[in-house]
Amino acid sequence: MYRARASIRLSSTAQANNESRKSFMSNKSAGPVAAELIADLAAASRILAAHGVVDGFGHVSLRHPGAPDRYLMARSLAPALVTPEDIIEYDLDSNPYNANGRTSFLERYIHGEIYKARADIHSIVHSHSPSVVPFGLVEVTMQAMFHNAAFIAAGVPVFDIREKFGATNMLVGDAQKGVALAEVMGRQDLVLMRAHGSVACGPTLQTAVFRAVYTEVNARIQHWTMALKPGAPIAALDREEGRLADVVNQTAGMRAWELWRVEIRAAVNW
Amino acid sequence: MYRARASIRLSSTAQANNESRKSFMSNKSAGPVAAELIADLAAASRILAAHGVVDGFGHVSLRHPGAPDRYLMARSLAPALVTPEDIIEYDLDSNPYNANGRTSFLERYIHGEIYKARADIHSIVHSHSPSVVPFGLVEVTMQAMFHNAAFIAAGVPVFDIREKFGATNMLVGDAQKGVALAEVMGRQDLVLMRAHGSVACGPTLQTAVFRAVYTEVNARIQHWTMALKPGAPIAALDREEGRLADVVNQTAGMRAWELWRVEIRAAVNW
Amino acid sequence: MYRARASIRLSSTAQANNESRKSFMSNKSAGPVAAELIADLAAASRILAAHGVVDGFGHVSLRHPGAPDRYLMARSLAPALVTPEDIIEYDLDSNPYNANGRTSFLERYIHGEIYKARADIHSIVHSHSPSVVPFGLVEVTMQAMFHNAAFIAAGVPVFDIREKFGATNMLVGDAQKGVALAEVMGRQDLVLMRAHGSVACGPTLQTAVFRAVYTEVNARIQHWTMALKPGAPIAALDREEGRLADVVNQTAGMRAWELWRVEIRAAVNW
Amino acid sequence: MYRARASIRLSSTAQANNESRKSFMSNKSAGPVAAELIADLAAASRILAAHGVVDGFGHVSLRHPGAPDRYLMARSLAPALVTPEDIIEYDLDSNPYNANGRTSFLERYIHGEIYKARADIHSIVHSHSPSVVPFGLVEVTMQAMFHNAAFIAAGVPVFDIREKFGATNMLVGDAQKGVALAEVMGRQDLVLMRAHGSVACGPTLQTAVFRAVYTEVNARIQHWTMALKPGAPIAALDREEGRLADVVNQTAGMRAWELWRVEIRAAVNW
Repeated sequence: MYRARASIRLSSTAQANNESRKSFMSNKSAGPVAAELIADLAAASRILAAHGVVDGFGHVSLRHPGAPDRYLMARSLAPALVTPEDIIEYDLDSNPYNANGRTSFLERYIHGEIYKARADIHSIVHSHSPSVVPFGLVEVTMQAMFHNAAFIAAGVPVFDIREKFGATNMLVGDAQKGVALAEVMGRQDLVLMRAHGSVACGPTLQTAVFRAVYTEVNARIQHWTMALKPGAPIAALDREEGRLADVVNQTAGMRAWELWRVEIRAAVNW
Repeated sequence: MYRARASIRLSSTAQANNESRKSFMSNKSAGPVAAELIADLAAASRILAAHGVVDGFGHVSLRHPGAPDRYLMARSLAPALVTPEDIIEYDLDSNPYNANGRTSFLERYIHGEIYKARADIHSIVHSHSPSVVPFGLVEVTMQAMFHNAAFIAAGVPVFDIREKFGATNMLVGDAQKGVALAEVMGRQDLVLMRAHGSVACGPTLQTAVFRAVYTEVNARIQHWTMALKPGAPIAALDREEGRLADVVNQTAGMRAWELWRVEIRAAVNW
Repeated sequence: MYRARASIRLSSTAQANNESRKSFMSNKSAGPVAAELIADLAAASRILAAHGVVDGFGHVSLRHPGAPDRYLMARSLAPALVTPEDIIEYDLDSNPYNANGRTSFLERYIHGEIYKARADIHSIVHSHSPSVVPFGLVEVTMQAMFHNAAFIAAGVPVFDIREKFGATNMLVGDAQKGVALAEVMGRQDLVLMRAHGSVACGPTLQTAVFRAVYTEVNARIQHWTMALKPGAPIAALDREEGRLADVVNQTAGMRAWELWRVEIRAAVNW
Repeated sequence: MYRARASIRLSSTAQANNESRKSFMSNKSAGPVAAELIADLAAASRILAAHGVVDGFGHVSLRHPGAPDRYLMARSLAPALVTPEDIIEYDLDSNPYNANGRTSFLERYIHGEIYKARADIHSIVHSHSPSVVPFGLVEVTMQAMFHNAAFIAAGVPVFDIREKFGATNMLVGDAQKGVALAEVMGRQDLVLMRAHGSVACGPTLQTAVFRAVYTEVNARIQHWTMALKPGAPIAALDREEGRLADVVNQTAGMRAWELWRVEIRAAVNW
């Protein structure tokens, strides 16, 4: 079904011509990326949409495999519509390299600033999944309800944009807000955003997507668990169990990605 | 996929012949409307059905772009079945201009009377989405749980038809009831109807649909938030955050409409 | 799309040959039924499955239009698989007339005994929809949360098979149990069955299906309403509002049936 | 639609060649199994996925019909992708006979050790369905909410891997953990696993799948029931009702399997 295609050149002559008048723009692409990787990144958008993690909004990025100071992400587009042709290269200040007139996501600074702060993170998912939002609105800590969401046992900080920036449009729409978000996230791989959504990260695209999907499932399980016996202690994964189970998720757990990728390939030819 | 078609004449000879015996009926169409706009209005019905905002019932209208004293809405039909051919022109007393024997929605007065009272509103959605109904049944105020539902931060009044009209069939089935509903709604863009449903409005078709969809999502988030920690304060959007975020929703937020419209076009040829 | 077909003879020679040894069996069919009606009854099964009211189990019946002492119902089969050819004629003791070796539902006595007790009822739906079951398990009365479920305002009794029959397999598997169920239902059109499911009835097939669907939706709304503010009074439809709104549901409300029937016709050719 | 095919030889020459260096491996297949049975087992995986009982993870096994010391289960693969060609034969120590380089599920010891301990069990489903997980996290006993989940009335023990094994990756990844799980399960047919999932068993493949599906449905009903009136007594099936209703589920209840199998056959040719 899937066939490797020639790698897609991310630069273009048209883009080069625009560079003189866009001083903020990076002036050199980090080079081509394997087409299969670009296709996987586009597929990741659709996988997240298919699982209800993202709807018309949300985005997933990948650190450039050959240049740690660059990342790849779709142009501003509903995740379910993303194709490999929509992927843009950004520097870590979130300036697009090859936008060619295409609009960028307003909140791309989430990605750029986390990549700056955390060399171990190579993929990031930002979403507003309805089950997760409540945990950013009341003082209840998200815990790891089952092994598939093991990484949550490390702790889940909440970013409130109001603390540093007062009343805003709620978006992480510039670098300073991205920096503040990355600071609150610290060494965790998940951060909730008050009255907005969340960000899930991982060392690979597959792990970031896996974590975003199971953060959503975990949130649903925690809602039901807490409703079942309000105030009762929950026998969630402890920190050590979380660490051990997360190791398995990053290898054997990739069976889920295999399924999800096949499902997307059934609908597109990349 | 989509091709612009010649604009649809909303009048007809057959209709003209009926005018003498229907004294209440407007005697002149406000003129043709661009086919693309009519198609978007029909698509809006199907978008709302696809998102579970409406089921076999509910309706969406658009103020006539060339005549503020007219509005456009489907004949009485399940939203998922609406086509451009089903759109009827109404005056603001909710008299159909070109019904040609087609049945009108019993509750069209919701639309006519709100358009009369609020010159800034150009599109209206009426629905009974299950997540929203509870907020009209107990004394709990709907709040804006996340930025996509920002417009809710302005406040959400509840219309109880029983207060002015006693025991009824619960429908806004005449002009007086429409006036009473519009009065309760006041300057807000959302009004709940006790034991019935809700009405979401906007300055454009796209914004009204967006608000109806995210009112439903917001209701689900608020249910889970309140169950998570009963009685706890909720860090919802405040009024100023709501105002600022709503501005973004009306522009960048239209990315969702783009997706939804494409999804409908995949099933129909208009 | 739909074309009227010749009416289906419900009798058969093979059946006639079996009659001598099956003394309990009715010895004469009440005569052929219009094919369109049989198709609507089969479609009703699939509509209920499509709306999650029934799953692999549940059944819907129709009183014979020409013989009030007979009713029509599918052979024992998952509702989503029912075709017009699966419809069997029963007398009100729930003996099949033209089974021809086909198995009957164990709980057909629900239908026969209610038809005996209530001349005004012409269609019955039995289901186990998950949202409804809880109202038969704890002491909380189902109320009419919105106009589409108006008929619920008349009251909803609960049948506990244990009261009269002790420990059983929970099924209404004989006439005595059917009689007991019909007695508890009384003059209402909905009865819940403890730890089992419910029965919704109506004067027409369309109304019974409509009521079964909106009983399920109403249950979901009531769950959320009660969770939203535990113990608070609910501004549900009162008895008079329920009576008035139910009248509308039986006429204008049939717009939903139109949609549902079209959806089934998109998958089958009857 | 379905056509019986020649039975599939589960052994192979390639496999035989590997035997010398895999001392732990069983050295003789228990012999071929009817292709229809293998197809049913593969279909069971997809049925469970279609009902949300399993997602990218989970597995279902069948005791070898001709050799009680062997069982059949898919290679490590997402349940929705399983085909008859993926089925592997295992001995009860969970050593694969004909893996041929294919990876086995890490948690196959769940199956092997339960088959050892319980001669009456011929099929096992392991899953992480979100509605069920909460009952392993707080002290609330799962009860049989309706007749379709009757087998639950016999009681539902909870296995906490931490009790005997301390901090682990949460997986039943070796024989000792499988033994411990089987001990906690005892004479019941369902066991919950803390912060992980559950195991449902039965005397036939069809009954195990039926029980896994209705355990999930039952969990959802119990969540809503307990939320409806917190702390109130629940009129669930008692032990005797459970026993009686379970008998019916194992025969007439198989109507559901018929539907589910047809649904899978609509997508595959086996």
